[in-house]
Amino acid sequence: MAAATTLDKVISLAKRRGFVFQAGEIYGGSRSAWDYGPLGAELKENIKRQWWQTFVRGRADMVGLDSSIILPSAVWEASGHVATFTDPLVECLSCHKRHRQDHLLEAYEAKKGHAPENGMADIVCPDCGTRSQWTEPQNFSGLMKTYLGPVDDESGRHYLRPETAQGIFVNFANVVTTARKKPPFGIGQIGKAFRNEITPGNFIFRTREFEQMEIEYFTAPEDAPAKFDQWVKDCWAWFVDLGIKEENMRQFDVPDGERAHYSDRTIDFEYNFGFGGDGWGELMGVANRTDFDLKSHIEASKQDLSYFDQASGERYVPYVIEPSFGLTRSMMAFLVDAYTEDEAPNAKGGVDVRTVLKLDPRLAPVKAAVLPLSRNEKLSPVARELSDKLGKHWNVDFDDAGAIGRRYRRQDEIGTPFCITVDFDTLEDNAVTVRERDTMSQKRVSLDNIEAYLAGKLLGAA
Amino acid sequence: MAAATTLDKVISLAKRRGFVFQAGEIYGGSRSAWDYGPLGAELKENIKRQWWQTFVRGRADMVGLDSSIILPSAVWEASGHVATFTDPLVECLSCHKRHRQDHLLEAYEAKKGHAPENGMADIVCPDCGTRSQWTEPQNFSGLMKTYLGPVDDESGRHYLRPETAQGIFVNFANVVTTARKKPPFGIGQIGKAFRNEITPGNFIFRTREFEQMEIEYFTAPEDAPAKFDQWVKDCWAWFVDLGIKEENMRQFDVPDGERAHYSDRTIDFEYNFGFGGDGWGELMGVANRTDFDLKSHIEASKQDLSYFDQASGERYVPYVIEPSFGLTRSMMAFLVDAYTEDEAPNAKGGVDVRTVLKLDPRLAPVKAAVLPLSRNEKLSPVARELSDKLGKHWNVDFDDAGAIGRRYRRQDEIGTPFCITVDFDTLEDNAVTVRERDTMSQKRVSLDNIEAYLAGKLLGAA
Repeated sequence: MAAATTLDKVISLAKRRGFVFQAGEIYGGSRSAWDYGPLGAELKENIKRQWWQTFVRGRADMVGLDSSIILPSAVWEASGHVATFTDPLVECLSCHKRHRQDHLLEAYEAKKGHAPENGMADIVCPDCGTRSQWTEPQNFSGLMKTYLGPVDDESGRHYLRPETAQGIFVNFANVVTTARKKPPFGIGQIGKAFRNEITPGNFIFRTREFEQMEIEYFTAPEDAPAKFDQWVKDCWAWFVDLGIKEENMRQFDVPDGERAHYSDRTIDFEYNFGFGGDGWGELMGVANRTDFDLKSHIEASKQDLSYFDQASGERYVPYVIEPSFGLTRSMMAFLVDAYTEDEAPNAKGGVDVRTVLKLDPRLAPVKAAVLPLSRNEKLSPVARELSDKLGKHWNVDFDDAGAIGRRYRRQDEIGTPFCITVDFDTLEDNAVTVRERDTMSQKRVSLDNIEAYLAGKLLGAA
Repeated sequence: MAAATTLDKVISLAKRRGFVFQAGEIYGGSRSAWDYGPLGAELKENIKRQWWQTFVRGRADMVGLDSSIILPSAVWEASGHVATFTDPLVECLSCHKRHRQDHLLEAYEAKKGHAPENGMADIVCPDCGTRSQWTEPQNFSGLMKTYLGPVDDESGRHYLRPETAQGIFVNFANVVTTARKKPPFGIGQIGKAFRNEITPGNFIFRTREFEQMEIEYFTAPEDAPAKFDQWVKDCWAWFVDLGIKEENMRQFDVPDGERAHYSDRTIDFEYNFGFGGDGWGELMGVANRTDFDLKSHIEASKQDLSYFDQASGERYVPYVIEPSFGLTRSMMAFLVDAYTEDEAPNAKGGVDVRTVLKLDPRLAPVKAAVLPLSRNEKLSPVARELSDKLGKHWNVDFDDAGAIGRRYRRQDEIGTPFCITVDFDTLEDNAVTVRERDTMSQKRVSLDNIEAYLAGKLLGAA
């Protein structure tokens, strides 16, 4: 059996420590969705807050939005999703299971090193093993539908959004009017989106329910290429600033013919997740959607979504640069990138392998752990009081179970930047030992200064 | 025509200033969902962060969770929702429009002051005016369904969650194991939920897509009544601390026979929104769900969701106290409660009516507005620099359009706690004028101290 990869170890850690659970696990689970446990919910929340601060609150040319998940059919007809958001599906004539044709062909090529010579005739059904028995491909919609109102008919049919972007486009005029914004400016949004993926997989990488962080940046058409380049830089810098190693990220300039129907140019950011194939997977994309979306909605809604530039006296339909981040994919990348094994001294004078998540302190789900050296009637109240005090500002853990070395390992494994030990000296000198996660260095800090000390180290953690 | 009520004014302000837009407005809009514009998205985000800090991060006995919106049918069959989450629907025999029977009866009673003497025979169809022509009531499911996978059949049928609570119950054992928590402890979650309301309405009060902040607090059965009382107090205190006036809130102890199928006791918090009927509407509820949910899932999933208390040597199925907050309803209450009209001096030496949202600074969507006294090549760069500097910490507005008095009014109307004016003296004394929203008092503050000054005033704003 092959040795466990870093990805295997991260997935195992994520499940064991409560970052990620299989959705509906007690009912047999599901490959299509995941639940985020106590640590995963905090990590995801921290990624969202950093993104919102960097790209929405912290920029004068950006505002936020939070639009509905369910939108009427008319929106998805205008956007082109009803017509083109489809995958080619084939059915095995023997077992009647359905598969995505492109996935079957890709799997063949990944295994054999070349495309099948006889097309689908070479493909074996992964479910029943029958070769060459396939229906003609049929287009299958990736949109999830539901019905609103008292009858399940055409009039009540709505779709769950497959991207948050359309909620921004249909509100473009509302934002221009009420927020007094003029191009170049952008609208950012974080939220769930849904795609009826036939073959979800690779942990939280491809799921039917997922979360996006999207920006639609509206600009004069002639400025679009320069804005596109700037957004590629800004997005890259965001990941690097939060700790992603540059050698684990790459850009892919998507060639003509392979881009989405709305895009004039797309650069995908790929991350080396380490799963099957070559290990790389899409993390986010920056697209130049041109005026495709606004023009489509102008045509379908008969509303005026153009912009009149008072300075130049010109009226135009803005071009749109779209940086679209996968939130759940970003979380997976931050976890994989932070996963480290090094060595730490053990109680016997030797060294043990230490697992440590070197997450940026702004992202770490727990900022500090308060550890009374032992369960003791004098130490416990002091430690509890400290933990409650720090809990007013940050997510703080309290742990008094087991040897101190084991407790350090537990905190290292979930990426807690600071362990604060309350010991018997604390009762004398009113100070505690602060241990730093990555260096394992220790420092004595007065209880009077501990809040300020941590505040300085946790700058920018919201 | 009657004078506009406070609620009318709040709704008008919310639409005009971009707190709330009708979903899909350019396609004719929808009563069933709303989009949150730049200010609404910030206000909602601030409410969520205060809630998360108070009830999840700030409490040692709480952890967070973020579970899926779409769950398999099995979960909703076990929870009782498939069987009992229904409303009685009647259809007009003349125009074939459907209505909720209980809403028709309530509307009759609200109008006439007494229940109809002859039942449905007295009820006139609100759509076509026909009296007494109704089908027998039929139960209509409030669950929204969708289909996952390649075929729209039974096997792929899933439901969108009508409450976030079930995602917590099915993860109870996962959290106990991975987060090393033991009762009494709770799990908090914020997220969207969906109900196929037949008659959505009252602005963002009753919508098909809405957002909840829910806590499921697990406790030994004998402690449940005391924990229930404590949660009622804690929830009440949260609203009051964030500025809701106590006279606008009341508690309703829901009597036997009117509670949800799972509840042994429920206290609803009602807020005086000021809409039709007596003006009061449900803001949140605290319920004692007993062991109903965990036992239902134990029976249906055959998994062990009991808890073994090592200290007492006893095994039991915990009782659950559920404080369930409507996030969008809370936002509506904060808006209505903050809406104030007072008087402010105008340029002519008289007074004008001033509209001001007296939102708690922690909730205010914009924390500070930077206003150069005039558009001027010397003032503008200083003001921009200040705005960028403050933007690193808070959501800050920059406004240089129009008379200073009008700009103050614009910021008052959206609840901005501080207006910072950069004037010609600034170029000399390196200081700015900070105007406080509620008192309109002004104070000169050095540019060197402005961040620290605001930080002190905005304590706890995350």
